[in-house]
Amino acid sequence: MPDIKQFDLELKLKCGVTLPAFLKYFTLGDPKNPAVMIPSCYTGRLAGTMNMVYGDEDAVSPKKYFVIVVGLFGGSESSSPSTQPAPFDGANFPKTVYEDNINAQFQLMKSLGVEKLFAYMGYSMGGQQAYHFATLYPDHVEKIVPVASSAKTSGFNWNFLEGVKATVQASSDFAANTYTEPVVIGCKAFGRVYSNWALSYEWFETEAWKEAGYASAEEYLMKDWEGRLTTWDARDLVQMAVTWQEGDISIYYDGDLSKALAAIKAEVLVMPSRTDQYFRWEASVEEVKSLKKGTLAIIETVWGHIAGGGAGTKGENKYINDQISAFLAKPFEERQ
Amino acid sequence: MPDIKQFDLELKLKCGVTLPAFLKYFTLGDPKNPAVMIPSCYTGRLAGTMNMVYGDEDAVSPKKYFVIVVGLFGGSESSSPSTQPAPFDGANFPKTVYEDNINAQFQLMKSLGVEKLFAYMGYSMGGQQAYHFATLYPDHVEKIVPVASSAKTSGFNWNFLEGVKATVQASSDFAANTYTEPVVIGCKAFGRVYSNWALSYEWFETEAWKEAGYASAEEYLMKDWEGRLTTWDARDLVQMAVTWQEGDISIYYDGDLSKALAAIKAEVLVMPSRTDQYFRWEASVEEVKSLKKGTLAIIETVWGHIAGGGAGTKGENKYINDQISAFLAKPFEERQ
Repeated sequence: MPDIKQFDLELKLKCGVTLPAFLKYFTLGDPKNPAVMIPSCYTGRLAGTMNMVYGDEDAVSPKKYFVIVVGLFGGSESSSPSTQPAPFDGANFPKTVYEDNINAQFQLMKSLGVEKLFAYMGYSMGGQQAYHFATLYPDHVEKIVPVASSAKTSGFNWNFLEGVKATVQASSDFAANTYTEPVVIGCKAFGRVYSNWALSYEWFETEAWKEAGYASAEEYLMKDWEGRLTTWDARDLVQMAVTWQEGDISIYYDGDLSKALAAIKAEVLVMPSRTDQYFRWEASVEEVKSLKKGTLAIIETVWGHIAGGGAGTKGENKYINDQISAFLAKPFEERQ
Repeated sequence: MPDIKQFDLELKLKCGVTLPAFLKYFTLGDPKNPAVMIPSCYTGRLAGTMNMVYGDEDAVSPKKYFVIVVGLFGGSESSSPSTQPAPFDGANFPKTVYEDNINAQFQLMKSLGVEKLFAYMGYSMGGQQAYHFATLYPDHVEKIVPVASSAKTSGFNWNFLEGVKATVQASSDFAANTYTEPVVIGCKAFGRVYSNWALSYEWFETEAWKEAGYASAEEYLMKDWEGRLTTWDARDLVQMAVTWQEGDISIYYDGDLSKALAAIKAEVLVMPSRTDQYFRWEASVEEVKSLKKGTLAIIETVWGHIAGGGAGTKGENKYINDQISAFLAKPFEERQ
C-alpha cells in the first residue's frame, strides 16, 4: 500500500458553499505512463479500491499505467462529515454532488501533470463518477469503464437509498444528527437493510456463501455487513447516499439521457452484473444503445451488485479483468 | 362492514406458552353455504382484507359462500402485542407462528359449524396461511388460493424482513422495546424501507403512480407508505415479520418442500405477481410442479408484490377475480 497523500483546494460547491476541501489519494507507477483514475465507491476506502475493480488479475498494471486512486467526498478519507475540520465538520458539512467530486479530481490530475486521462474507471458510485467525468470533461479522457453502475440513478435506486438513509437517521444512537459517539446500532441496522439489496435472490437460493467460505448466510451477513458497516461514520453514509441519489448526467442536456450519453466522446465499457437489483443490466443495455462508442459486457453472477466490486467468484473476477484488459489494449474500431 | 366478533380460546403455542388467545373475525353470508376462509396479511386489517384478494369484482360473493374473514396473530386485532391484556401484553407477548394461527382458525371454524372449508385463500402472509392450513388440516379444505405468496419463506425474503425489523428496532422511539407512546419515527423509516420491496423497479420506470392518481412517486411513497405505517404498533410489525420469516410447510416433511407440496390434497391456484421481488414467480412455478392439483396464473403487472393485494390496475384486479372465479366454479379435472 503506497502512502496516502492529500491535495488541498478551495472548492466552490454546487450548493453554493466554498469548502476548504481536500482529496485523499495515492498514485502507482510512472507519471510518464498513460494515466488511469480510479475513484472510491460507496463505503469503499482507498486501500480496497484497486481490488474493487480488478480482482486478482491486475488488468491495470502500474508497470504500464500511472494509476491515481482518489477518495470520494463523504467517503471518510477525502473531505467528509467525519474528516472535515470546523466550521464544516460533522452535521455542518455541506451537500456534495458528483460534479463537485469531478471538478476537484480534475484539479488533482492537473496538479499531477496529467492533461488527459487514458482511462477513468470505477465500480458503482465509481462508475457514476466515470460517466460524470466523461460528460463534464469530454476532452480529457479517452476511455471509461463503469462497472455495476449507471449514468443516471433510477427512481427505484433513489428510493432504496431513501430507505437505508431513513434507517440510520431514525436510529437511537444517530440521536437526530447530534451524536458524538459512533452510531453502532444505526449502522448495524443500515448494514442489514443494505445487505439484501447488495446481494441477490439467486445468491440465497444457490447458497453462494458456501463457496465464499462461510458456514451460513447469517454468518456472512453479520460479519460482512452488520460488522463492516459499524466501522463507518453515520453522517458519511448519508452524505454519500445523497451524492448517489442525485447522480444524473442528463441534467447537463435538459434531462435528455440519450443525448447526454451520445455526447460522450470517450469509449465506454459498460459492465453490469446480471443480478444487480438497483443498477439493472437492462438499463446498461439501453445506455450502450445511445453511446457513440459503447461496449456491453454483462457479468454472469449470483453475487448481485457486489460482483462488480470483485466479491464474486474467481472466474467472474477473471472475466472482469479480461474485459477491461481487452478494452484498454485496443481502440474501439479494432475491437469491433 | 359487518360487526367484528371475538373468538376466545386457550391456545398452547408452539413456543410452549399457553396463551389466553382471541381471534377477531367477521362472517358474511349464510352459514349453510360453502365456507371460504380469508385471513389477514402483513399490515392488513380485517376491514380491508376482502379487497386485498378480490379487487372490485367480488369473486367470492356472500350470496354464494359463507365467508369467514379472520385476523392474524400480531395483526393488531386478534391477539397481538398491542391488543393482548397483561401478563402477555406488549414486550411480553410470546412468539407466534403460522401453526398457531392455523390451529386457532381451525377451532374457530368448528365453533361456527364448519367441518370442511370449501376454500381458503389469502394474499401474501394470507397465502402462506393457506399453504399451512392445507398442510396441517389436509382433509378440511377443498381448494386454496395463495396470491403473491409461497409455501416456504426464501432466504432472500427472510433477510429482507431482518432489514425492516432492524430498522424499527434500532429506531429512537422504539427505545429498545420499552416504548409506551406510538413509534412514529421508527415506523416511518420502516415504511420507507418496505416501500421499495413492495413495489418494483418497473413501477418506477413506467411511472405507475400517475395512473394511480399521484403527482409523483414521492407523494405516493409518503402517503401510502410512511403515512400508513405510522398507524401500526411497532411490536406488532415485528411480531408478524417473525411469523412470516418462519413460514415453511416443509418442516412437517423433514425439510423436503417437494414432498410437503405433493402431500397437499387441496386443489391449489397459485397466483404470483410477475414483478414481486420477494415472493418470486419462479418459486411459484416450482411449487406447481410438485403440487398434485396445482394451477399457475401469473399476474402481469409492474405493481410488484402489492398487485396481489389489489393495488394494481383495474385490468389486473379483474384478472385476479376471473382466475379465482373460474378456479372456484369447477373441479380441477374439468378445468384441465
